[in-house]
Amino acid sequence: MPSDLRIALIHYPVLGRDGKIVSSAVTNLDIHDIARTARTYNIKRYYIVTNLPAQQDVVRTVLHYWINGYGRKHNFSRTQALELVELRSYLEDVIESIESETGKKPIMMFTSARKSENTITFEMARRMIRTSDAPVLVLFGTSWGLPEEIKQLCQYTLEPIRYGSDYNHLSVRAAAAIIIDRLVGEEGGTKS
Amino acid sequence: MPSDLRIALIHYPVLGRDGKIVSSAVTNLDIHDIARTARTYNIKRYYIVTNLPAQQDVVRTVLHYWINGYGRKHNFSRTQALELVELRSYLEDVIESIESETGKKPIMMFTSARKSENTITFEMARRMIRTSDAPVLVLFGTSWGLPEEIKQLCQYTLEPIRYGSDYNHLSVRAAAAIIIDRLVGEEGGTKS
Repeated sequence: MPSDLRIALIHYPVLGRDGKIVSSAVTNLDIHDIARTARTYNIKRYYIVTNLPAQQDVVRTVLHYWINGYGRKHNFSRTQALELVELRSYLEDVIESIESETGKKPIMMFTSARKSENTITFEMARRMIRTSDAPVLVLFGTSWGLPEEIKQLCQYTLEPIRYGSDYNHLSVRAAAAIIIDRLVGEEGGTKS
Repeated sequence: MPSDLRIALIHYPVLGRDGKIVSSAVTNLDIHDIARTARTYNIKRYYIVTNLPAQQDVVRTVLHYWINGYGRKHNFSRTQALELVELRSYLEDVIESIESETGKKPIMMFTSARKSENTITFEMARRMIRTSDAPVLVLFGTSWGLPEEIKQLCQYTLEPIRYGSDYNHLSVRAAAAIIIDRLVGEEGGTKS
């Protein structure tokens, strides 16, 4: 049974600077960078989750340019990466897509710079991805991170990166790269 | 002896799309993302190397805003990260700075998506960083990567990330994050 690892980048609901729930803007480089990382590590799908129509249009425009437009000729490696992207309005839509595609509910993993009760190590998560017959979906937050209400939907929380450091303000692009590398490493990845 | 790990992001000389030597433009997010990663992993200095005066001005403007300007109040964690940045015109200037600061020539490591003769594993590099009493300088290339003439100056080449993958087009922001995580990990980093 090949492993089935997927990721989602959440723009709503996420925390704002003051801890309130906001809907963040899509960043072009989040689409590209994380798609390139996902493709390098054979991630099966990269869901971009935003509920705002204008932000959805930004994502569609980028995808159209690189998949159907001039970008395909200009730099085909971007096309290959961006073909992994699927746009969804809400996390619930992502879960529904995975269920209807695979017939299984995904195991969901929350990521955060803070520790919590249901935290598992990268080694445990890595083993789970390799042995589970359900898809594993890792969630990444934009803005100031993922809120409690998303954590409630997740079975597990991944341990923070560099928890002992006095500074923990990685960009989501860097955090996603490090987490995916720790989960997949040199050999693994979705094979089918 | 605490380890002394430094990184440099090279904008000249780098390879262009056609394999010729070019001077690439500075990207604002390269400054921020890699500085945040460097600060998280206790990297000692993050050198940005560009020989073009207009590009140097871009770097100076960003640093001034976040270190001396309004950015300091707006988001101090960016200030803490960007204080690690030093702007230099050429790699030779970086080497000279390190020598005059530490009294030692740095051990230089080349990074590339391709393998070469003097390639060492991440584990070997990690041990070298922890045990060497000379500073270790890891070089990252923008555009289409670092050229042969830079490799000639380096004692070692780090093994490629995901060498077995059929796709290797990570962004430099993601590659730097993964490489630094592999070299420093959860506990290490420059301590002084």
